[in-house]
Amino acid sequence: MSIAQTPPPPYYAVIFTSVRTIKDAEGYASMAQKMVGLAEKQEGYLGHESAREEVGITVSYWATEEAIRNWKAHAEHIIAQETGQSDWYQNYCVRVAKVERAYGFSKV
Amino acid sequence: MSIAQTPPPPYYAVIFTSVRTIKDAEGYASMAQKMVGLAEKQEGYLGHESAREEVGITVSYWATEEAIRNWKAHAEHIIAQETGQSDWYQNYCVRVAKVERAYGFSKV
Repeated sequence: MSIAQTPPPPYYAVIFTSVRTIKDAEGYASMAQKMVGLAEKQEGYLGHESAREEVGITVSYWATEEAIRNWKAHAEHIIAQETGQSDWYQNYCVRVAKVERAYGFSKV
Repeated sequence: MSIAQTPPPPYYAVIFTSVRTIKDAEGYASMAQKMVGLAEKQEGYLGHESAREEVGITVSYWATEEAIRNWKAHAEHIIAQETGQSDWYQNYCVRVAKVERAYGFSKV
């Protein structure tokens, strides 16, 4: 995991913030890995970043809103979303945002 | 730390993703805590979420772009940004995004 290499804006970010239940750590980790592999193959996927402490934050980046809708409606992703609600998440929030500007810093 | 309680969109998100150096964990933690306290007092601050594993992700939410500019230009925050570049961060990316829609889930 490193900082996502995204193109110049505009593009879209999906900010997914969640609090886990204590259930099924193994099944969750396995599904999370599978979803990353699937997302990376989607048309319009640009990258993602993820970290979890008390809250988990996954930000995924997409070229268009259509790409976000297609990923949300992906058959295997729908199964993951349903199991997320039944088993894995105490609560979560999804925010869809248009990235308007970006800048960075890197040590030489 | 829990999921930020934000108002209905539109509002702004600043997605700050970083990779730490191994330097000065104590000074970094102290400054991070101080910056949270200061940010919370800024006009237009709506909340934030933060987690760090290999990458650190802090998403802060703001009512307006002006509020984001004011926070970036805050005198004590500028000192933190400078020390961030000299000591704390290997690299980072700041993305400013307009949240257009949001939805959530919570277990009953």
